[in-house]
Amino acid sequence: MSFIILITTFFILAQNEALPNLPPIPKDNPQTKEKIELGKMLYFDPRLSHDGTISCNSCHNVMSAGGDDSRSLSMGIRGQRGGRSAGTVFNAAFYSVQFWDGRAKSLEQQAEGPLVDPAEMGNKDHKSVVERVRKIPGYVTLFGKVFKGKDPVNLKNLTKAIASYERTLITPNSRFDLYKRGNAKALSDIERKGYETFQTVGCVTCHSGANFAGPSLPEGTGFYMKFPTFPNTKFDKKYKFSQDEGRFKVSKNKEDKHMFRVPTLRNIAHTAPYFHNGSVNSLEEAVRVMGQTQLNLELNKDQVGQIVAFLQALSGSIPEQTMPKLPAVSNQSVVDVQ
Amino acid sequence: MSFIILITTFFILAQNEALPNLPPIPKDNPQTKEKIELGKMLYFDPRLSHDGTISCNSCHNVMSAGGDDSRSLSMGIRGQRGGRSAGTVFNAAFYSVQFWDGRAKSLEQQAEGPLVDPAEMGNKDHKSVVERVRKIPGYVTLFGKVFKGKDPVNLKNLTKAIASYERTLITPNSRFDLYKRGNAKALSDIERKGYETFQTVGCVTCHSGANFAGPSLPEGTGFYMKFPTFPNTKFDKKYKFSQDEGRFKVSKNKEDKHMFRVPTLRNIAHTAPYFHNGSVNSLEEAVRVMGQTQLNLELNKDQVGQIVAFLQALSGSIPEQTMPKLPAVSNQSVVDVQ
Repeated sequence: MSFIILITTFFILAQNEALPNLPPIPKDNPQTKEKIELGKMLYFDPRLSHDGTISCNSCHNVMSAGGDDSRSLSMGIRGQRGGRSAGTVFNAAFYSVQFWDGRAKSLEQQAEGPLVDPAEMGNKDHKSVVERVRKIPGYVTLFGKVFKGKDPVNLKNLTKAIASYERTLITPNSRFDLYKRGNAKALSDIERKGYETFQTVGCVTCHSGANFAGPSLPEGTGFYMKFPTFPNTKFDKKYKFSQDEGRFKVSKNKEDKHMFRVPTLRNIAHTAPYFHNGSVNSLEEAVRVMGQTQLNLELNKDQVGQIVAFLQALSGSIPEQTMPKLPAVSNQSVVDVQ
Repeated sequence: MSFIILITTFFILAQNEALPNLPPIPKDNPQTKEKIELGKMLYFDPRLSHDGTISCNSCHNVMSAGGDDSRSLSMGIRGQRGGRSAGTVFNAAFYSVQFWDGRAKSLEQQAEGPLVDPAEMGNKDHKSVVERVRKIPGYVTLFGKVFKGKDPVNLKNLTKAIASYERTLITPNSRFDLYKRGNAKALSDIERKGYETFQTVGCVTCHSGANFAGPSLPEGTGFYMKFPTFPNTKFDKKYKFSQDEGRFKVSKNKEDKHMFRVPTLRNIAHTAPYFHNGSVNSLEEAVRVMGQTQLNLELNKDQVGQIVAFLQALSGSIPEQTMPKLPAVSNQSVVDVQ
C-alpha cells in the first residue's frame, strides 16, 4: 500500500503543468501598480551601480527573448566577469530559492547581492546605494508614495520594489502551455515526440512542475541536484563543470558539494550559452551533456533532436511593457564619473 | 545700409525659438512607423556589440532625463573608456553635423562609428555586424519589410533605421518653449532674468536657435567654435580642456585646432558631467567656466545663479515609449560569449 502511494506521489511530482499567470506573492510584499512601476525604474537604473554603467537589466535583459545577456559570464563594472552565468529573470518568481546555489530565499534577498558584488554593480556597501537613491528627488517622492513609515528610502523597500516588478516578468502561453490547456495541435509531431522522450529518459524527474524546475516548495526551500551527478565524463572534462563546488561554497556542508538549484527550462532556446559556467553554446550539445552527466545516458541523434524541438515549444510571450522614465537629478551626476 | 543689414542678420541668428515637434527629415530616409520600430530594436540591442554588453542606449540612455550616461567618459566593451564624453541623443536630430568634432554629417553616418570603435562596441568591421544581424531571423524579416531591394540587411539600412528612431527622440514643451509660445508665466522671475543675462553677456551668440546650438545649417555644415576661445585660464589648466585639439584631429587643418561643434543646451541640467572631456560635474561650475573661457568674463554669483535657473527651464518632455522586444535567436548565442 505504501509502495503504491510512493509511486503515485512520484508521478504527481514528476510532471509539468501550464504556467500560471501569477507567481506566488509574499504576504509582506503585496503587488501594487505604483510599487511595480517604481521597481521597474530601479531595475533599469544604471545609477544603482557604482560607476553608472550597470543596471539589473544589463545582465537580465527583459527586452531579450531569454531574459538574460547571451553571455557565458556576465560583465560587471570595469569589464569584470562574474563567477557564474546570469540566470533568466523570466519566471524567476516561481523559484523558491534564488541564484544557482540557492543562497537567497526570495527575489527580495536576491536583489541585495549584485548591488554590492565588486564584480557586478560594485557599490561599497548597501548604505551608499540608499544614500545615492536619496539624492534623486523623484525617487524620494515615489518611495514616499509607495511605502508607509518614516525614511521609506531604505534597502528593504528598494528590494521589495524590484522584486514586485520581477513578479510581473512571467512568460505564459508557450506552445506547451496551449497544448496543456487542451489544444492538441499546439505541439507538432516532433515536439510531442520530444516531450515523450523528455519524460521517458528521465529529464522530467528534476525538470518537473509548471516552471520545469522541480516541485513547488515553500519560500526558502530549494530543489537541488548534484551536477554533474556522473562526474569525470568527457563532457565534465571538456567543460570543466566540476570546478565549481556549487552550494558547498555558501553552506560549507559536504553534502552540498556540486549541488545546484535545478534551473527552469522555460525559454531555454533563447538563454544560450548554457550551464552555471556558460560553457556550452548550443542547445543540442547541452541536451547531450545532460543525458551523460545527469542520466548516464548517451542520447542518440534522434532523441537529442526531439528534445530540442520540444524545448523550443517552451518559449512564452515576453511581457508588453512601457519604457520607464528614470527620475532626474539636476546640475550634477550622482555616479562615480571616472 | 549694409551695416544695418549685418546687424539685423546678427539679431536674427542670435536668438532662440521654441523647439519644433519634428526635426529635419532627409529625403532619402523618410520616416515610417515600421522603420522607427526596427531602429528602436537595433538601438537597444547589445548584440550589436562584439561581446553583447553595449547597445547604443548604454551611453545614450533614452530612459534618463539627459539622454546620456551621467559619466565623464563612456564605458565601452571590456571596461574601456571612450575618448570624449557621450553627447545626449535627445534633439541630436536638429544638429547639422554629429560628434563633438562634427566628423559625421548625419545621424546615419554617426551610427556607423561606435559599432567599430575598439573602445565602444568593438566589432572588427561593419561586415561582421551585418553578418551577425543576418543570423537573427526576426531582423531579416523586418529589414525585408522595411527596405526594398535585394539583401536589405546591410549597413546603410541598419544606420537608416537607427537614425529614423533617433529622429523621434525630441523633447518639446520645456518651460522655455511654453514661454516662447506665449505663456509669460511659464518662466519664473529668476528664470526670465537668467535668460536676459544669457543674452546680454553673450551666451546666445553661439547657443542660438531652437536647439540652443547655433543657427540651422544644411546637413554636413557644422557650426563650430574654438574651445577654449580664451585658453590658459585657471579653468583651462584645472580641467585640461586644451589637451583635446578638437576638429583638428580629423581634418588636420590648422584653423580647426580646438574647434568643437557648439553643443545643445536643451536638457543641460541633466547631462552632467560637462564638456567634451566630462571634467566638470556641476552646472554652476560649467557656467563659470564658459564665462571665462568663451567670453573672458568672470560672471558673478548672481549671474551664475540666474543662468543656471534659466538653463533648468530648458528641460523638455522625454518621449513616451513602449519597450522593444528584441528578435530571438534559437539554440545558441550570436555574441562573443567570452
